[in-house]
Amino acid sequence: MRFKRFGDDWQVRLESGDALHDSLVRLAAREGIGFAAFSGLGAVRSASVAYYNVETRAYETLDVEEQLEVTSLVGNVSIRDGQPFVHAHANLGRRDLSVFGGHLMAAVAHSTLEIWVTTQADRVERLPDEETGLALLELPEAG
Amino acid sequence: MRFKRFGDDWQVRLESGDALHDSLVRLAAREGIGFAAFSGLGAVRSASVAYYNVETRAYETLDVEEQLEVTSLVGNVSIRDGQPFVHAHANLGRRDLSVFGGHLMAAVAHSTLEIWVTTQADRVERLPDEETGLALLELPEAG
Amino acid sequence: MRFKRFGDDWQVRLESGDALHDSLVRLAAREGIGFAAFSGLGAVRSASVAYYNVETRAYETLDVEEQLEVTSLVGNVSIRDGQPFVHAHANLGRRDLSVFGGHLMAAVAHSTLEIWVTTQADRVERLPDEETGLALLELPEAG
Repeated sequence: MRFKRFGDDWQVRLESGDALHDSLVRLAAREGIGFAAFSGLGAVRSASVAYYNVETRAYETLDVEEQLEVTSLVGNVSIRDGQPFVHAHANLGRRDLSVFGGHLMAAVAHSTLEIWVTTQADRVERLPDEETGLALLELPEAG
Repeated sequence: MRFKRFGDDWQVRLESGDALHDSLVRLAAREGIGFAAFSGLGAVRSASVAYYNVETRAYETLDVEEQLEVTSLVGNVSIRDGQPFVHAHANLGRRDLSVFGGHLMAAVAHSTLEIWVTTQADRVERLPDEETGLALLELPEAG
Repeated sequence: MRFKRFGDDWQVRLESGDALHDSLVRLAAREGIGFAAFSGLGAVRSASVAYYNVETRAYETLDVEEQLEVTSLVGNVSIRDGQPFVHAHANLGRRDLSVFGGHLMAAVAHSTLEIWVTTQADRVERLPDEETGLALLELPEAG
């Protein structure tokens, strides 16, 4: 992982073999980031992509070992159980240019994965929610 | 809808049943937002997805009632006819991880839809354009 | 091309016939932008979409002449060989709402292509990398 800070923004570049979630957790922990939004592009050599089935409350995950373009990456970093937590969705492009995607459980960069991170001098928690079975961003209700 | 403001940025979280466009219009109206860019991820329970046919000047819309991952959401909020107006495109992921997408006419959140909104202390109008049949962002021409 | 500056952010709107890469290079050169991240949505009338084959170190490119929705556009502008350089990935939606995508070699706007650009008062170089065969963002290694 390489990165450069510009005020509240960071340009991160993952190198071949860098794990996406671990890298962003490491960045957040080291730099004391309590909330961040990110977007990115690049390529991965493997990915675990999931669909969350609300009825069964389970992630249905496909593990792919293949060089894929990351045609888009969108996500955020919040605090769950006291630790930085990465929530990321991605679209992934195959060699035939077809695209698939979903919730990204894990991904390992290939060649380069460029991630633009915007942080806040604040903290957002992610708390368990009974209704959905998910850990949701703890934000004030609109009045 | 829940949200938290961080200076010029807002983290919004839509809850099950919240309509995307209505929620962002409500946020913009209430907070006096005259221009914003946003990106997001999460899930929806229904969506109206369209392709704009320039030749017929008509949106060709597919209404889908299905739990879908929002693998990416990109858009902006401007002012049209004096009211906040949402322009959004999305990629949507099915249970088999296949992705489809286009112009998002409407969408209803399911479980969670997390939207990162960056606002400007300024205002951008969207005005009707004869050539394209669309309402376009009113911006100065590059000199 | 039309655009408006808001501090370090820019809202750009490409018009029918505007080339994406050329337009952003022109904006960066004229405004002295040394680094920027961008995201966008809209439509194109043609696009060259590629998959980078790491083994052969070659981009495998498909040229498409078709009106396509840009369901997402993510990228950045850095400096390569002293000139602004655009790195962009896109997801593109067909009339049947199917999506394909990859590394965007070129694209020409149709009707409108709205791009949100966040710049830094700094400069990031893109340098040739022997291992990958790519020009990579020159960023400090995480300590």
